[in-house]
Amino acid sequence: MHTEAVAWTTDGVLAVLDQTFLPEEVHFRRLETVEEVVEAIQSLRVRGAPLLGVVGAMGLAAAAQRALQDGTLEGDSEIVRDWLTRSAEALRTSRPTAVNLSWAVDRVTRDALEVLDTVSNAASADSVVQSLRDGAQKIWDDDAERCMAMGGQGVTIVPDQARFLTICNTGMLATGGIGTAFGVIRKAFEAGKGSHVYACETRPLCQGARLTTWELVRQGIPATVLVDSAAAALMSEGKVDLVITGGDRIAANGDTANKIGTLGLASLASRYNIPFYVAAPLSTVDRECPSGAGIPIEYRSGSEVERKAPGVGVYNPAFDVTPAELITGIVTEAGILMPPFEESIRRVVGE
Amino acid sequence: MHTEAVAWTTDGVLAVLDQTFLPEEVHFRRLETVEEVVEAIQSLRVRGAPLLGVVGAMGLAAAAQRALQDGTLEGDSEIVRDWLTRSAEALRTSRPTAVNLSWAVDRVTRDALEVLDTVSNAASADSVVQSLRDGAQKIWDDDAERCMAMGGQGVTIVPDQARFLTICNTGMLATGGIGTAFGVIRKAFEAGKGSHVYACETRPLCQGARLTTWELVRQGIPATVLVDSAAAALMSEGKVDLVITGGDRIAANGDTANKIGTLGLASLASRYNIPFYVAAPLSTVDRECPSGAGIPIEYRSGSEVERKAPGVGVYNPAFDVTPAELITGIVTEAGILMPPFEESIRRVVGE
Repeated sequence: MHTEAVAWTTDGVLAVLDQTFLPEEVHFRRLETVEEVVEAIQSLRVRGAPLLGVVGAMGLAAAAQRALQDGTLEGDSEIVRDWLTRSAEALRTSRPTAVNLSWAVDRVTRDALEVLDTVSNAASADSVVQSLRDGAQKIWDDDAERCMAMGGQGVTIVPDQARFLTICNTGMLATGGIGTAFGVIRKAFEAGKGSHVYACETRPLCQGARLTTWELVRQGIPATVLVDSAAAALMSEGKVDLVITGGDRIAANGDTANKIGTLGLASLASRYNIPFYVAAPLSTVDRECPSGAGIPIEYRSGSEVERKAPGVGVYNPAFDVTPAELITGIVTEAGILMPPFEESIRRVVGE
Repeated sequence: MHTEAVAWTTDGVLAVLDQTFLPEEVHFRRLETVEEVVEAIQSLRVRGAPLLGVVGAMGLAAAAQRALQDGTLEGDSEIVRDWLTRSAEALRTSRPTAVNLSWAVDRVTRDALEVLDTVSNAASADSVVQSLRDGAQKIWDDDAERCMAMGGQGVTIVPDQARFLTICNTGMLATGGIGTAFGVIRKAFEAGKGSHVYACETRPLCQGARLTTWELVRQGIPATVLVDSAAAALMSEGKVDLVITGGDRIAANGDTANKIGTLGLASLASRYNIPFYVAAPLSTVDRECPSGAGIPIEYRSGSEVERKAPGVGVYNPAFDVTPAELITGIVTEAGILMPPFEESIRRVVGE
């Protein structure tokens, strides 16, 4: 089930729903070059770990098609190889924390490079564009399917009349489908198990207030927004049955990098004996990271915190790392992973 | 040591530094009537528990003087009594959580009513105005003195090279003097014990980002602002030696209502073994409240959370309650109160 977060245009380039205009305005943006895709990613016009993978792959395919049309790829296969290698590198490093972006870009690039080795110089550009496009479509399709699967798995851990607390946006604006944590919430409401959703504002860019409430209202789900620091009071008042968030990168031991503030929610959930779940596709697991200490954290510009005295510094990490010990379970397309995560993760993703 | 947060004008009414314009603009506002004082309090042009007490008392005196001048108080002492009782009630209920406001208004009103009982009808208005003005001046002076005393007491619990984390604004913009928690920080830097101050943005009205960083930069104190939800990451990285906040109302058992987000900071400080102190004058203690459960919490307008989808609710408490068990100590003008707070509080404020 695809959504309008991202799409191919009729002329074969990429259109994304520009999330910086939400919730006030629904505005689509055409992306035709690698530079435009990188800009859209870095400016958070598109964001969300799984969607970054989808956009990275689709963006590379769209840019290759455009390069083919404007003659940039003319010549022998080395020109195509060079372009592809440089473009993939620019995309995969455009944001550092979410592993899905580099994972998706690497996957379609590797397949395209393999194709390149098997075709003539004359056919190289066409073949690479077709391979990238097929690969990107598959990543998109797979992500939508995984969201549905995650939603189905996740609904099993939701109590009746559940009041959810979540942070950032993990819905159709963050994935190629119905979402990760949001997909679980949506499936729970469809199954009659949901009662209310509390969405943390998610400073500094307010993805919870701007994007998640927009999605919740569209789905007809009763929703309340709160400033991030009010989550403690909400939990202390007994108004939350389940905290569920997405994940940007999960280490082999279960430590999970996610939107700044997730660590605080997990810590408070533990204090108030509220289950804390992460929902993320298995592509979020980074087996190269034994623990959270190895996850690179993106520090963003201080200008995102708008009103402050001149001369003051800004500590502005986009993510924090929640230690595995604070995580009740991880909802994936392959089932709910339970502690000890080192074992349950190894079982589903291999060594 | 008074500051420019509040002052008598040369023509005897009240001038306050309008905090809604900070940090961009330093703008003073004249307050001449009870309605104007109430508006300034409710719109947070002035805020901070101790300053609300000072402004409530000074505002009542200024409004009485204005009423005397424009003839509202002409007639017998019953007219004066009526005016005073109604005005005091409007002021004391203009914001519910901070106990200092009603405490200060009640104190100057009680004294003025006593004066009223001892003077002739003809002298009643003049005597009441004089009593209110003397009473308000004393509350202002006392608060400034208490801030200095708190700072002196608090500096003893600050480790060398301390990196502080604080929330909201507790400085000269929140008190009649150098501040509560901010006063401790300022004194610590004067004593060479401070190294850095991290100020939580303090959503939704950003008093930390707007006001505290402005005060820190003015004092030449190295400062960094962070979104509230980044405090967990900051603490987990070992960058905080001491969390210190103000208090809006302290129950007899030590449970403390303070700016929304304080409970989260206290809980995280406990998790990361960081001392968590409240700094507040003894007037903040409400012996009528046996525990935090009895403290009234102000819920503010949802419009304070700006960007959200139409149709979504807003959970917007201005305060939360930190249970005594999470508080390392309470810095007061009379010394550092330590657990068990029921005893230490009783010792200094009586039954």
